[in-house]
Amino acid sequence: MSRPTETERCIESLIAVFQKYAGKDGHSVTLSKTEFLSFMNTELAAFTKNQKDPGVLDRMMKKLDLNSDGQLDFQEFLNLIGGLAVACHESFVKAAPPQKRF
Amino acid sequence: MSRPTETERCIESLIAVFQKYAGKDGHSVTLSKTEFLSFMNTELAAFTKNQKDPGVLDRMMKKLDLNSDGQLDFQEFLNLIGGLAVACHESFVKAAPPQKRF
Repeated sequence: MSRPTETERCIESLIAVFQKYAGKDGHSVTLSKTEFLSFMNTELAAFTKNQKDPGVLDRMMKKLDLNSDGQLDFQEFLNLIGGLAVACHESFVKAAPPQKRF
Repeated sequence: MSRPTETERCIESLIAVFQKYAGKDGHSVTLSKTEFLSFMNTELAAFTKNQKDPGVLDRMMKKLDLNSDGQLDFQEFLNLIGGLAVACHESFVKAAPPQKRF
């Protein structure tokens, strides 16, 4: 086996981190509210600590839980990662100086 | 600054790999068909080489290009990563022995 590429490593890491938090209690294939809070306060602590509104994690969980079963499945979890990545990417693009076009 | 968590590192890596390939030609904020093929044949070569059907990358590009502009933006690119991650995750869950529940 050759060394995994950076993209392959990311895919593996996202699966591993989801399984780590999903396995903490109850259904091991979904994140409960408690597991979601544990994930956000550990893995995304830099983001979470910056939120001044204490209700933001509650609202995020509700918004991500598309089928309203009180749990986040892997696809719903990826929507969170994707949403954060898009927000970061947009702030980088905005911060970059405009490209010259001749 | 403390060391980034694994999840933060993944978000950064996905942005960096997208920007690397998107910057190869033309619009630097989207992946053209050529850039998409370059990404698939380099970063996801293990997946791409296993496809027996030569039209699979063409069909993937068409399916991912939700607004049919012939380019993949960052959100469309994340749908690719998410789709592959969900497929990998499902094959892990299926391959795992059923959990004993007492």
